[in-house]
Amino acid sequence: MKKVGVAILGLGVVGGGTYKILTDNREYFKKSQEVDVSVESVLEINAERIKALNIDSSIVAKNIEEVVSNPMVDIVVEVMGGTTFAKDFVIKALKSGKTVVTSNKELLAKHWPELEQTAKKGHAGLYFEASCVGGVPIIRVLQEGMQANVIKSLKGIVNGTTNYILTKMSEEGSSYEDALKQAQALGYAEFNPTADVEGFDSTYKLSILSSLAFNTKISVEDISRKGITSITKEDMLYGKQLGYTLKLLAIGKNTENGIEVRVHPTYVANSNQLATVSDSFNAVSLVGDSVGDIMLYGRGAGALPTGSAIVSDVLFAAKHPENYYATFDNTVDGKKTTKFVSDYTSQYFIRLTVQDANGVLGKIANAFAKQKVGIKQVKQSAGVDGKTPVIIITHECNESNLNKAIEKIKNLAPVYSVDSVIYLED
Amino acid sequence: MKKVGVAILGLGVVGGGTYKILTDNREYFKKSQEVDVSVESVLEINAERIKALNIDSSIVAKNIEEVVSNPMVDIVVEVMGGTTFAKDFVIKALKSGKTVVTSNKELLAKHWPELEQTAKKGHAGLYFEASCVGGVPIIRVLQEGMQANVIKSLKGIVNGTTNYILTKMSEEGSSYEDALKQAQALGYAEFNPTADVEGFDSTYKLSILSSLAFNTKISVEDISRKGITSITKEDMLYGKQLGYTLKLLAIGKNTENGIEVRVHPTYVANSNQLATVSDSFNAVSLVGDSVGDIMLYGRGAGALPTGSAIVSDVLFAAKHPENYYATFDNTVDGKKTTKFVSDYTSQYFIRLTVQDANGVLGKIANAFAKQKVGIKQVKQSAGVDGKTPVIIITHECNESNLNKAIEKIKNLAPVYSVDSVIYLED
Repeated sequence: MKKVGVAILGLGVVGGGTYKILTDNREYFKKSQEVDVSVESVLEINAERIKALNIDSSIVAKNIEEVVSNPMVDIVVEVMGGTTFAKDFVIKALKSGKTVVTSNKELLAKHWPELEQTAKKGHAGLYFEASCVGGVPIIRVLQEGMQANVIKSLKGIVNGTTNYILTKMSEEGSSYEDALKQAQALGYAEFNPTADVEGFDSTYKLSILSSLAFNTKISVEDISRKGITSITKEDMLYGKQLGYTLKLLAIGKNTENGIEVRVHPTYVANSNQLATVSDSFNAVSLVGDSVGDIMLYGRGAGALPTGSAIVSDVLFAAKHPENYYATFDNTVDGKKTTKFVSDYTSQYFIRLTVQDANGVLGKIANAFAKQKVGIKQVKQSAGVDGKTPVIIITHECNESNLNKAIEKIKNLAPVYSVDSVIYLED
Repeated sequence: MKKVGVAILGLGVVGGGTYKILTDNREYFKKSQEVDVSVESVLEINAERIKALNIDSSIVAKNIEEVVSNPMVDIVVEVMGGTTFAKDFVIKALKSGKTVVTSNKELLAKHWPELEQTAKKGHAGLYFEASCVGGVPIIRVLQEGMQANVIKSLKGIVNGTTNYILTKMSEEGSSYEDALKQAQALGYAEFNPTADVEGFDSTYKLSILSSLAFNTKISVEDISRKGITSITKEDMLYGKQLGYTLKLLAIGKNTENGIEVRVHPTYVANSNQLATVSDSFNAVSLVGDSVGDIMLYGRGAGALPTGSAIVSDVLFAAKHPENYYATFDNTVDGKKTTKFVSDYTSQYFIRLTVQDANGVLGKIANAFAKQKVGIKQVKQSAGVDGKTPVIIITHECNESNLNKAIEKIKNLAPVYSVDSVIYLED
């Protein structure tokens, strides 16, 4: 039976989950995978963590050099996070010819071409299933399950923290602030929640997923980003009334005009399966030219789900020794041949407060029509003190045209305010 | 660049789709997969099909011997269907050391151990992603994406024809007969619909999926089967009123007491994502010990979706030359060590017609209580002519106990009839 030795760098939540799965299921993997995987080395400065996992001191390494020079180690699992030590350690492992399995989305999103070149030179594998959407095998599906397709689009709920917050706001009518506090109390959100709520985490993941889906390196800088911090109770409520649920979506489209990549709050029609993805669950829906619509759904974080993805990569690397790389030639050699779309195409949800008088809607409709923005649905509610909320859902249109129309509408005398302009997907 | 030659046996719907994807995307695969895949041979007796695809006569083989002796052919794609010629041809290809990619669920479900032994002897690969759930990469996910998990359960809508019929019945209030006619008119159901509507097709797929999920060969004969032909408009309607959608589910559970495998109509709670899978779409939800809940959703049939799965296997086999097999030792050598559960555990939905009188519900409740069947929900509607419909939803219980209770209830004086007993999943 094939024997494979693993080192784990970092025994935090994911590292601990990975250690547990590898040791608990070792006998099972011998039967089901015909591979004997053993943990031969761990690197962790916190002695408590080593003790908590009952790890024998003989496999605790003093430093990265000891790990990468250990002939028993074939695969190095990096689950430390961050981009300083983690990058240094991963580069050292790859240079030593050790295959690396990492959950580090930030490291990958920011330094992928460099890591890939180092892996190629070292004849080492580079695996990162755990970097996106936790335990959902989305990367394996892109690379080994949908590879017969030219992928047209990718839409995902890829951040559990924001999805938990938005679910609470939707289901309980909480404010953003209250829902965030609840998420922090339950450990779903960090004390400093910026990376999640401002959408940074989602852009890292979209960078990785869209690069693989569209076969070209898409950097974090190529992605437009808007977080959920300005979402109000009213946004939730008005969307609900019209059959839409507000989600933070990561969207990638491969169109004739170029690639469109963006992360932002989006109204999703309740008939769309993404609308039913609640709490800290994640999902990604894809459209391939042959297969059509596909959706994958599951847990986006957590010790064991993310550990499941790490161990899946370890077993895959152990069973399939050939190394393949994403080969993003246009980025690696500094050229930028990929065309990006900056004038997005989408449907939009616009909420206005207008004067309760005849002819107001006509003026607004004219302003949209002049910019070729088609109106799909209008809802005007009963007003209070002569002020009436109006909601307009547009057909698909160019964002530049929409913005021109909105500028015009803002300056119409009977329009008090444009309260929200939010992307919308059926 | 690695070059791989493919032969296609059968140019029907799936064979045509496969040919189209392989030829249309050949240049794309060179870039994205670093493999040059060419169709080197086709075997098809219908000359019209060859003409329709513009296939050069130089690659049309006269017989299977010509295909398997062709040194340009590395991978043989079998998309003929059936178990006579298809079996003979697949065995010949495997014996010649050609890797086989097949969509033939019936062949695989019935002859898997023999095919696998032949593949092993011939040092050939055996791939069958297209045999289950069309374009959804469920088999790759089981083998290469969730392999870190001991899989606890699998629940799927794996037959598009029956899901289309049930969707029409649910959404339009059609009878089974009318919905079937509609499905036949649209080409979703065959003239003789038995294989689909009686659940045989689903048992083939469940046999394959549960064998992989639970790492033991589960035969079609191990699976209990009930089709959808006796489902009535009333069943649909009453389920809807209580928040349940009726689906034909394939269910596999790996419990402490053994393995439970069954195909039958099932009420699925509308909060369960499987309830939202409509028309000819398919979905499979899985629970792994590490990853928790996962669901995959997509098109279960059609030329291009199934072709996508075939070509995915071709590319996977081309890139990863090591062959792995499912190794169902307990079946291959004739031993039967796998324990099966025959007394199923489930929730149930029971519809009765009873006398509109005091004390009737009490008598029914007592009969359930005596057999330790817990009642979760009761709904009694307004009666007509002294006859009242009653619906009872049970907690999870043993089927043997339920049946004893039902026998008792049938014989209660104020019970006119037990109209339906249907499985139920939250």
